[in-house]
Amino acid sequence: MEVSEFFLKLLVILISAKFFAEVFAYLRLPSVLGEVIAGIIIGPSVLGIIVPDATFYLLAEIGILLLLFEVGLETDVGQMLKVGIQSSLVAITGVLAPAFAGFWISNYVFHLPFVVSLFIGGTLVATSIGITVRVLVDINKHQTKTAKIVLGAAVLDDIVGVVILAILYDYAVKGEVNIINTAKVVGFITVFLLIAPLITKLFVPLISKLSTKKRTRGMIPTLIISLILILAVISHEVGAPEILGSFAAGIALARRFFLPLGSTIDHYSHDLAEKIEEKMTPIINLFVPIFFVVVGASINLRVVDFTSLNFWQIAGLFTIGAVVSKMVSGVWVKGDFRKKLSTGIAMVPRGEVGLIFAEVGKKNGIFDDMVYAVIVFVVALTTLFAPLMLRFIMKGEE
Amino acid sequence: MEVSEFFLKLLVILISAKFFAEVFAYLRLPSVLGEVIAGIIIGPSVLGIIVPDATFYLLAEIGILLLLFEVGLETDVGQMLKVGIQSSLVAITGVLAPAFAGFWISNYVFHLPFVVSLFIGGTLVATSIGITVRVLVDINKHQTKTAKIVLGAAVLDDIVGVVILAILYDYAVKGEVNIINTAKVVGFITVFLLIAPLITKLFVPLISKLSTKKRTRGMIPTLIISLILILAVISHEVGAPEILGSFAAGIALARRFFLPLGSTIDHYSHDLAEKIEEKMTPIINLFVPIFFVVVGASINLRVVDFTSLNFWQIAGLFTIGAVVSKMVSGVWVKGDFRKKLSTGIAMVPRGEVGLIFAEVGKKNGIFDDMVYAVIVFVVALTTLFAPLMLRFIMKGEE
Repeated sequence: MEVSEFFLKLLVILISAKFFAEVFAYLRLPSVLGEVIAGIIIGPSVLGIIVPDATFYLLAEIGILLLLFEVGLETDVGQMLKVGIQSSLVAITGVLAPAFAGFWISNYVFHLPFVVSLFIGGTLVATSIGITVRVLVDINKHQTKTAKIVLGAAVLDDIVGVVILAILYDYAVKGEVNIINTAKVVGFITVFLLIAPLITKLFVPLISKLSTKKRTRGMIPTLIISLILILAVISHEVGAPEILGSFAAGIALARRFFLPLGSTIDHYSHDLAEKIEEKMTPIINLFVPIFFVVVGASINLRVVDFTSLNFWQIAGLFTIGAVVSKMVSGVWVKGDFRKKLSTGIAMVPRGEVGLIFAEVGKKNGIFDDMVYAVIVFVVALTTLFAPLMLRFIMKGEE
Repeated sequence: MEVSEFFLKLLVILISAKFFAEVFAYLRLPSVLGEVIAGIIIGPSVLGIIVPDATFYLLAEIGILLLLFEVGLETDVGQMLKVGIQSSLVAITGVLAPAFAGFWISNYVFHLPFVVSLFIGGTLVATSIGITVRVLVDINKHQTKTAKIVLGAAVLDDIVGVVILAILYDYAVKGEVNIINTAKVVGFITVFLLIAPLITKLFVPLISKLSTKKRTRGMIPTLIISLILILAVISHEVGAPEILGSFAAGIALARRFFLPLGSTIDHYSHDLAEKIEEKMTPIINLFVPIFFVVVGASINLRVVDFTSLNFWQIAGLFTIGAVVSKMVSGVWVKGDFRKKLSTGIAMVPRGEVGLIFAEVGKKNGIFDDMVYAVIVFVVALTTLFAPLMLRFIMKGEE
């Protein structure tokens, strides 16, 4: 790619994202939807200006790292742990129900082969943590109890999603599953998530010192982004998604971080927290929309044959299965029906994780064009409509 | 490139840049040198961890755009025009003398073919605007009169460098030079540089309005970077280097911008200028070092056979030619010998522009391995030592 071509494409991404985000915000809808729709419009589905290549995918990955960092920064671990049991139950149901629904519809209703059905089940598992948290932030509900349950569940979901993808991939390609390896990965991830924020916390005094003693400019953004990258890479090494590393980095630097025993670590000055927020916010705001535009541009709706009745039958049933099976997970939430419903709906969007599954399935010949098109369609639908529904159902929730 | 590999490489770039920048700043040397040396160390010359690929080149390009934007932002057009004649004379001499020296040494001393000699002459022309302005900022001399003359001369140099590259390339590859085309390009560039800041200025009220009426986050960084990208792309389209577009964007948003007729445009609130500075600084500070690390990592000193006496003779003579011919340009500066000397030395670094010439020459078979190695060596030497000398010679200058 020529430099000026890259600049032009980056320009189109930034401007279209901002334009549609503003329009959606004006209509009182989650602006993240505007960004995804900007991606669908400039992507292969409509205009075909942007077909995300390696560089834009990598910039998008920085965006999602930064978003999860910011979410971590605003996360109160104590409050998250308080709703931990509800989160876990929501997550477990949110994994089992869609996996079962996907498998059942594929295998029993449409008589698809066993491996294909398994893979479709896996595809319907992972909640898009990115879409979900951005919607909650956009509609200003990210500090509600529902949001805390959903965040915990989405994080767990994401881990389980990656583990399931690994297992299914092994099974589909090699014909066997290495249980010991899988158990190891789960163990590593658990240990990592428990100790990463604590160990990171120990480096906060160093960051604080470097940011005041510095002789060059830009110490804070460089240190914070380096920290995010280190934890993302370690997270990847232990077998977890990179975004969990940046989430851990955010938690470690959160103002309200405290040890499970109830004692807070108070090396962390209020001053540093403010400086981090001030310096990181412009960078976060620049990169995050790139992620959602790339998600939109990764959805190629042209693969979908909208004139085929057969397609509508299959896609319709899968969409219902994908939505209902996630909504079921809301039953575990304490409170009125509305809380259960909003939690269930918040778990619905599949976004980028579903697309990754679909790509892997297609590349390895597990999904044919029809199944691939159905998955892309289901992902697009859950990504776009769950946020809309959430916007209306969570009105007034605190 | 895998996502986690990208994260790891980005981490190595950011951390090594910051580490060496701090060490150099501690030694009271320009921190930009630390960044270039970080690049040489992690690049193919020493460790070989980073061999810049497309993505890092593109991130580096954003870095240099942002640096030139920032320089533009702090530029007082009026004062630049005041020293315009001196700048022009410095620039013209800074083009003709090295071109002649390079050609003469190649053709008459070492009897290299005519086209090769022409190309070497061209390679020695362009001053690295990036290195030069960063050094001046690092040693806190960017508001001196010398800095203003050098900045103007470096900008002109960069334009002439691109035009010469185009002419030489045509001549070397096609065997003919299209004079009319060249004249057109020069005309376009001149018109662009004159009117781009003025037209951009007309959009400032719109930016100001959008940044207050916004409903989504991150309006200012998105708008400013979009503006920079638009002007960079237009600049490329008229045949000028992209960085001149971002420089024009900076000038348009500078606080001290005024029309040549002496009337200032006062739509521009002090408030907006402060917001732009606050939001853009972290982004600039994050990206700019990537550029200098990539410059360092683009220099592969392994191509140089340091044991060859022949190499030292050729490289030695070319280095002397490259340094002396640029230093001559300082004669036009009014004032004492020290001012002439510091201007001349500030024009010495060749940096990325020289490397681009060398790459083009090598790819098209104009430069053989020896000539290529000599050029790389001369670029490395002028890039590294001119800043050091400047640091000592400009001591006390105001």
